[in-house]
Amino acid sequence: MYRSHSCGELRASNINTEVTLAGWVQKTRDKGFMIWVDLRDRYGITQLIFDEERTPATVVEKAKTLGREFVIQVKGEVIERESKNLNIPTGEIEILVNELIILNEAIVPPFTIEDETDGGEDIRMKYRYLDIRRNPVKNNLMFRHQVAMQVRHYLSNEGFIEVETPYLIKSTPEGARDFVVPSRMNEGQFYALPQSPQTFKQLLMVGGMDKYFQIVKCFRDEDLRADRQPEFTQIDCEMAFVEQEDILTIFEGLTRHLLKEIKNVEIDEFPRMTYAEAMKAYGNDKPDIRFGMKFGELNEAAQHKDFKVFNDAELVVGIAVPGGASYTRKEIDKLIDWVKRPQVGALGMVYVKCNEDGSYKSSVDKFYDQDDLAKWAKVTGAKAGDLICILSGQTNKVRAQLSALRMELADRLGLRNPEEFAPLWVVDFPLLEWDEETERYHAMHHPFTSPKPEDIALLDSRPGDVRANAYDLVLNGNEIGGGSIRIHDAATQALMFDHLGFTPEEAKAQFGFLMDAFQYGAPPHGGIAFGFDRLVAILGGQETIRDFIAFPKNNSGRDVMIDAPAAIDSEQLKELNIKLDL
Amino acid sequence: MYRSHSCGELRASNINTEVTLAGWVQKTRDKGFMIWVDLRDRYGITQLIFDEERTPATVVEKAKTLGREFVIQVKGEVIERESKNLNIPTGEIEILVNELIILNEAIVPPFTIEDETDGGEDIRMKYRYLDIRRNPVKNNLMFRHQVAMQVRHYLSNEGFIEVETPYLIKSTPEGARDFVVPSRMNEGQFYALPQSPQTFKQLLMVGGMDKYFQIVKCFRDEDLRADRQPEFTQIDCEMAFVEQEDILTIFEGLTRHLLKEIKNVEIDEFPRMTYAEAMKAYGNDKPDIRFGMKFGELNEAAQHKDFKVFNDAELVVGIAVPGGASYTRKEIDKLIDWVKRPQVGALGMVYVKCNEDGSYKSSVDKFYDQDDLAKWAKVTGAKAGDLICILSGQTNKVRAQLSALRMELADRLGLRNPEEFAPLWVVDFPLLEWDEETERYHAMHHPFTSPKPEDIALLDSRPGDVRANAYDLVLNGNEIGGGSIRIHDAATQALMFDHLGFTPEEAKAQFGFLMDAFQYGAPPHGGIAFGFDRLVAILGGQETIRDFIAFPKNNSGRDVMIDAPAAIDSEQLKELNIKLDL
Repeated sequence: MYRSHSCGELRASNINTEVTLAGWVQKTRDKGFMIWVDLRDRYGITQLIFDEERTPATVVEKAKTLGREFVIQVKGEVIERESKNLNIPTGEIEILVNELIILNEAIVPPFTIEDETDGGEDIRMKYRYLDIRRNPVKNNLMFRHQVAMQVRHYLSNEGFIEVETPYLIKSTPEGARDFVVPSRMNEGQFYALPQSPQTFKQLLMVGGMDKYFQIVKCFRDEDLRADRQPEFTQIDCEMAFVEQEDILTIFEGLTRHLLKEIKNVEIDEFPRMTYAEAMKAYGNDKPDIRFGMKFGELNEAAQHKDFKVFNDAELVVGIAVPGGASYTRKEIDKLIDWVKRPQVGALGMVYVKCNEDGSYKSSVDKFYDQDDLAKWAKVTGAKAGDLICILSGQTNKVRAQLSALRMELADRLGLRNPEEFAPLWVVDFPLLEWDEETERYHAMHHPFTSPKPEDIALLDSRPGDVRANAYDLVLNGNEIGGGSIRIHDAATQALMFDHLGFTPEEAKAQFGFLMDAFQYGAPPHGGIAFGFDRLVAILGGQETIRDFIAFPKNNSGRDVMIDAPAAIDSEQLKELNIKLDL
Repeated sequence: MYRSHSCGELRASNINTEVTLAGWVQKTRDKGFMIWVDLRDRYGITQLIFDEERTPATVVEKAKTLGREFVIQVKGEVIERESKNLNIPTGEIEILVNELIILNEAIVPPFTIEDETDGGEDIRMKYRYLDIRRNPVKNNLMFRHQVAMQVRHYLSNEGFIEVETPYLIKSTPEGARDFVVPSRMNEGQFYALPQSPQTFKQLLMVGGMDKYFQIVKCFRDEDLRADRQPEFTQIDCEMAFVEQEDILTIFEGLTRHLLKEIKNVEIDEFPRMTYAEAMKAYGNDKPDIRFGMKFGELNEAAQHKDFKVFNDAELVVGIAVPGGASYTRKEIDKLIDWVKRPQVGALGMVYVKCNEDGSYKSSVDKFYDQDDLAKWAKVTGAKAGDLICILSGQTNKVRAQLSALRMELADRLGLRNPEEFAPLWVVDFPLLEWDEETERYHAMHHPFTSPKPEDIALLDSRPGDVRANAYDLVLNGNEIGGGSIRIHDAATQALMFDHLGFTPEEAKAQFGFLMDAFQYGAPPHGGIAFGFDRLVAILGGQETIRDFIAFPKNNSGRDVMIDAPAAIDSEQLKELNIKLDL
């Protein structure tokens, strides 16, 4: 062992003991007759002192050559520090060095290894191994480990078995795009990397495994939006002989356990909301309920005058912005510009200032009188001093637009406190959603999701209205988990495939082994999967996942550190029986 | 919830309570007026009784339709069983059923769902989901989960952080063949699946992570020998600021912890042996030391007579087979045939019977007298009643041959007790091994393994004699882990690449990012990786890994259950910018 103690360990009680430390040179201060070095390792920082009067001259000379990030080993005595630094745990002591070994030199790092670094995102990614030396990244990775340990602890105690499912599986056209792996031993054939272990966990239920979980890497070859990764980690779970309520109970328990153990936050029963309610009140199936600003639908209150924009709209809907009445004209114009950005896509915004004196001033005073505006304030819950922002148009679009505005304003108003946790179950998702591109209904969750029995009759007449036994767990406006009760009988599964536009032959080709398995006695079952990267980020008080992943990829799916993907040699291609087709 | 209790839970103390159970029909016995059904789930088997006198007639009728592996739910009363079965925990009670719901029917399974099944390996793999219903497979998977939990528990307590390293990395020609993944977004480029997280764990050490572990899938596109899988699981570990002794201590601790917690076996300090000693005494770098039969080298004792076979041999070596003197001529001839099989490859075998009366009878009595044979007995440790088996030839070959014979005989003699555990460290592995095919030295472990400083001088003159800071952990004759202290300075790494036949350009192209990283202050570090599949199998008292893997592949790398790999459609190939080249 190169050290007797870590750099985060020594205290006043260790004074007068001989110790050996090893680590990286964080910084040096050379006063000529005296040199101080901050020595850093994973556990903290300890101050070293080289003193002309007390340290051998050769050691002092060597200390003068130390540069940032040199790796060194020192032996010395723990002494009391003259000017104590009570901000760090080791701040009462320093090491009077009598022996110094340079284990490795270092060239100057491309950015400072400090909590607040001068390195931008790109350079930090290229030198990720240096970035990981910084406390914020290092602590995120250690935090992630703690969360994973607690997940396993809880689920294992609840009788769940972690089963490793295969990574080299079979490509299925349904769903997102697969990454594929050419098979050398099976010419012309390909494995696919799993988008999720969905079919395997269902087969484990058929196999009687009863309570399964796995923290597992999944892969999707999608065009990457910001903060998406081609490989990501799921907490994947499945249970047999359960109904939706059982699953919600267990995984509400898991989330509560994590909040308690990791964040010391206690939360009672999680609120629940149907998908329809969430869309109506928040324009969003993953509402952030840490703050209000609920939607107020204004069709009734606003479609009786000559304002054509509202009268022609499928939906007129507003939110009350706390304190927004004080916004200047310029600030409001900026808000209007914001909702008109292509990313949001509104055509305009109507606003009403709710003045402190009880009067209203709106951008549509030409059409609406004070009584009308008072009604709008009532519907949106606006109080004196608030600003009502109103959008109108096609229901789905206007909801999405107003939801974006609501989140943006909440961010600006500081209403999204990262240390406050507001979980929420959203239930009763639609079974199917219309896909404009392929002009057919797709499974909103996946083709194995069971419809609510009472809605099956609607499958032919109003397929979009059929609700599923599907649920999402939302935390602070982010979907952290989602799942469903699965179809477990062949007849319902055949009906579903039919409504998803599969011929029986296509269904058999793609999902034959699962349908075969179901013939041998499938139990009722259901499950859930959590996006582990996001869960960890949100528990860590952040919304971007990248700094909770040790070696993330950029938006082109590249690992800029190792420079992957890369060309491979023609020998390799030949062995795999493929060639490039550029 | 479909049940109030599991099928493994009810006891005499539950008698007179109303319960709901759900599970699979294991078997039915229909006596006409009375029907018994064994109901099975993950937790056990509970007997159900349908009784004409006490069960509603419609329920009895329905019970008569039940087939093997039907999934049912029953409600009823726990009653005392008339003929108790004390072999199973639920054997004192049965359930008098008053309600029966068939949750799912089942067609007849292709093999019996019993501990001893009538299904062969192939059919069990095709219907693996049914195989998993069988106790032996189910218990293996649950056992695997327990081992994984204990590994994480121990390492986390020791301050190790589990860090997930990427699966989509870069292909490196050194080592085994990579599986590759075409990148759609980076035309003509490929990711590779990791053969191990080796470089990433070293980068984590450069990043100051200090103590890393990960239970992780790895991939090798090798021609599969029996009991090899293209995807397999490792416990991958790395530590910084450590020497070999520190690593041996920590991971001996891990192995001791597993043996204690999982098998309730306490083992003191693990013995250690150098590679050279292991090869000399066992002809093998992973000796099974649960039994003796150590090699006795007979060159000195046997090369003084006219027996040309021995005189021409580089090595003459024998083992004493306990009790083997009683083997008939026919049995010995069979042994000789066994060593001459192409898989073993010996040209013949000399034997000496050590008779109970102290005399010797050998197959080479023509050349050797009783005194000679007595010396041989002494060298091989043979006692009266033993048989000495002697092979001769080229050292490496003859050692491998005699080692194979030693293991075979131990198996036959029942000396390899699966419930006895004999761990062993083998240390001081050679740094390099000669590869006949490429006619150059290859790294025995990998190119980052550090040579013993005192042997570096031999690199030019006798490269094969240079020892590495490399070690294997052996358990019951299987290598369960292996690792090394890594090179952490650029100069030694450059020297190694040079001796492995890399030009500086080639080294930079393949390992440039690691060598770059080392310039920024690499700490001394080292690690180990355990083959998790094999570790679990051996702890479970078996040597084949397949039944400790939920969904294994066959020897052609196929998953016969899902029928993967498979052809993918031309659209997919086009998007990936590749075409088949058959």
